[in-house]
Amino acid sequence: MINVNENFLKLQAGYLFPEVGRRIDAFKAKNPDAKLISLGVGDVTQPLAPVVIKAMKKAVDEMGDIDTFRGYDGGGIGYEFLREAIIENDFRQRGIELEADEVIVSDGAKSDTGNIGEIFGLANVVAVADPVYPVYVDTNVMAGRTKGATETGQFEGIVYMPCTAANNFTPALPTEPVDLIYLCFPNNPTGAVVSKEVLRQWVDYAKANKAVILFDAAYEAFITDADIPHSIYEIDGAKDVAIEFRSFSKSAGFTGVRCAFTVVPKQVKAYTDDGKAVELNKLWRRRQCTKFNGVSYISQCAAAAIYSPQGKKQIRRTIDIYMKNAALICRALAKMGYQVYGGVNAPYIWLKTLNGVSSWDFFDLLLQKANVVGTPGAGFGPAGEGYFRLTAFGRPEDTAEAMKRFAAL
Amino acid sequence: MINVNENFLKLQAGYLFPEVGRRIDAFKAKNPDAKLISLGVGDVTQPLAPVVIKAMKKAVDEMGDIDTFRGYDGGGIGYEFLREAIIENDFRQRGIELEADEVIVSDGAKSDTGNIGEIFGLANVVAVADPVYPVYVDTNVMAGRTKGATETGQFEGIVYMPCTAANNFTPALPTEPVDLIYLCFPNNPTGAVVSKEVLRQWVDYAKANKAVILFDAAYEAFITDADIPHSIYEIDGAKDVAIEFRSFSKSAGFTGVRCAFTVVPKQVKAYTDDGKAVELNKLWRRRQCTKFNGVSYISQCAAAAIYSPQGKKQIRRTIDIYMKNAALICRALAKMGYQVYGGVNAPYIWLKTLNGVSSWDFFDLLLQKANVVGTPGAGFGPAGEGYFRLTAFGRPEDTAEAMKRFAAL
Repeated sequence: MINVNENFLKLQAGYLFPEVGRRIDAFKAKNPDAKLISLGVGDVTQPLAPVVIKAMKKAVDEMGDIDTFRGYDGGGIGYEFLREAIIENDFRQRGIELEADEVIVSDGAKSDTGNIGEIFGLANVVAVADPVYPVYVDTNVMAGRTKGATETGQFEGIVYMPCTAANNFTPALPTEPVDLIYLCFPNNPTGAVVSKEVLRQWVDYAKANKAVILFDAAYEAFITDADIPHSIYEIDGAKDVAIEFRSFSKSAGFTGVRCAFTVVPKQVKAYTDDGKAVELNKLWRRRQCTKFNGVSYISQCAAAAIYSPQGKKQIRRTIDIYMKNAALICRALAKMGYQVYGGVNAPYIWLKTLNGVSSWDFFDLLLQKANVVGTPGAGFGPAGEGYFRLTAFGRPEDTAEAMKRFAAL
Repeated sequence: MINVNENFLKLQAGYLFPEVGRRIDAFKAKNPDAKLISLGVGDVTQPLAPVVIKAMKKAVDEMGDIDTFRGYDGGGIGYEFLREAIIENDFRQRGIELEADEVIVSDGAKSDTGNIGEIFGLANVVAVADPVYPVYVDTNVMAGRTKGATETGQFEGIVYMPCTAANNFTPALPTEPVDLIYLCFPNNPTGAVVSKEVLRQWVDYAKANKAVILFDAAYEAFITDADIPHSIYEIDGAKDVAIEFRSFSKSAGFTGVRCAFTVVPKQVKAYTDDGKAVELNKLWRRRQCTKFNGVSYISQCAAAAIYSPQGKKQIRRTIDIYMKNAALICRALAKMGYQVYGGVNAPYIWLKTLNGVSSWDFFDLLLQKANVVGTPGAGFGPAGEGYFRLTAFGRPEDTAEAMKRFAAL
């Protein structure tokens, strides 16, 4: 008899985005004429940069000609032209040297942060921030690294590291042993960033405890302060203990194009039960070449185009539009008396509700009275209760209108 | 201390394609001027159809305009326009009704056949053909459903179903209980097809044993005989027990575009230890929305274009080119005295070497003397020993030249 993976069934309690969707649908059914503005899901709204459009058209033309047609991308880890552009621009220019096959191109940071768990043993103890991007947790639940959900929606077996205003949304080092640490900076959902000094403590912790850090840097393009690290490899020794995830989704608006990459330095190791060190780079490439067949050639050409001088300018312009949205949201909310976090080096604004209103009550209020959709902080974990996430990825006019409606509440 | 997934380490023995690559590289190093012809890897060589090029350019333009820009594709299971086109053309026209969310669009059949294992328990007994597409086996090894490799390169814990000329390359029903059955028709690597009568026996077996069939139909576009089923759902009751995988990679030359889909009917169930039935459709969509973020909008538009009347004609022309290659290879080899299988309703030609020459010796001979690359049958499993796979996906002139060199051996 065919058995189901029963770990999936642990997930049924309170998944965030379907519940958000359900409430929106119910509202729309009752209010078909309401003009909803969504500052909820982190999807972008600006069109692709002209250099990207041009590069994609050229790639499409190549695919229509027998002499320039491209099939599988070889090793399935991305064309060298893209991996070299990534290494040169995102790393070498920050003093970080990487080998060409330490960068593995993929279709998305969600896929990679979700799939990376496969190369690790099931007995590892996972540490995540609270609040947290649900993918880190759910994928570990599916894999069987946890027991069931508790009443708070957290899972037994995972070490949660609370992040609140009290600790500046930066998790403290764990006091119990952990093996696999998910860190995301600039953070989703809080918009918090991390200094080099704090990141160094994490690298030191990982070294001392033979842990591995999964560093999600999907939002690094939104960093504006010069002293905030863009890559964990800006910290000496991080190559020994950290895997880094990057994405073109938010930096270049590729949510509908699909291209991302993961850096797995050859120094990063995990261990067998009898203590043998194994290179994770080899394992991840083995995983990818067995269960993945590379990214669309057209998407890879699109990604490479953003590294041209023109491309850099054009995607910067788009990021500036979003960062102006963020600034506008922060200003407007502060004026209304809200405590506001993030929104400076990050596209997410994390606000504290007034008078202790719960996240979901605030969600309902905003939906019903202002027809604005955000994301309840509690959906990202218990420490998010009383907080609320807004994104800067809306259109400027919608963002301004949303703030007007907010103020009128 | 961070533990590695030790199941990955079981794989190190004799992986097929890296070994093929190693021998080619060694040959090239010694013979830099040799003009190799590859009929090895199953990658396509013909350019994309004009309707596909046109659709992709239109999609690219849309992505460059704020009013038509597309981000995430919603549920991450594919745009409805594509899923509806698939259902109408690939299924309804063959008398099969499917609901829109029973078709889940993805980036490749390799990804899906590789990842599908996640929704099943680890204790399930897996059955595969021998010879077999290595992805089915390797992904189960990685997941921990097997012990180590035996001397033959097979894995303890998997039930292998030998396919040779003696049984017309169609596996016999298992005599021991199995839970998860991988079937691939038209077959990779043997090119064998299956009749409705035989497929019905498998469906009956799965029903009687509460097993699930994973039916890989990636090569269905190459079927020319009217009585060969294109979909397992042409068999009554298959919706209760089968998941089907399809791909645009071979049917429309999308190996570099990346688009495929998987059909998970809502009737297909797997069971908890205490006998509760769970819908696999929900689980697979939960897996995909957690660990995948949809396919490039441009690739989805490309895929939809092949279902237009013009598109159908154009991709048929390309398939005809490959099928002419296949016919040429079959004729040429038969003339040389080889026993040849496949190549009629499938793009793979499976030949028996002469005089009991081993697969790898034949590989080396063909590489060294004819500068033609194929794939040793033994690489797909012990029952493939003494066989050799050629693909019809080369350029016609290369295919003809390869056969000339072959004949001159």
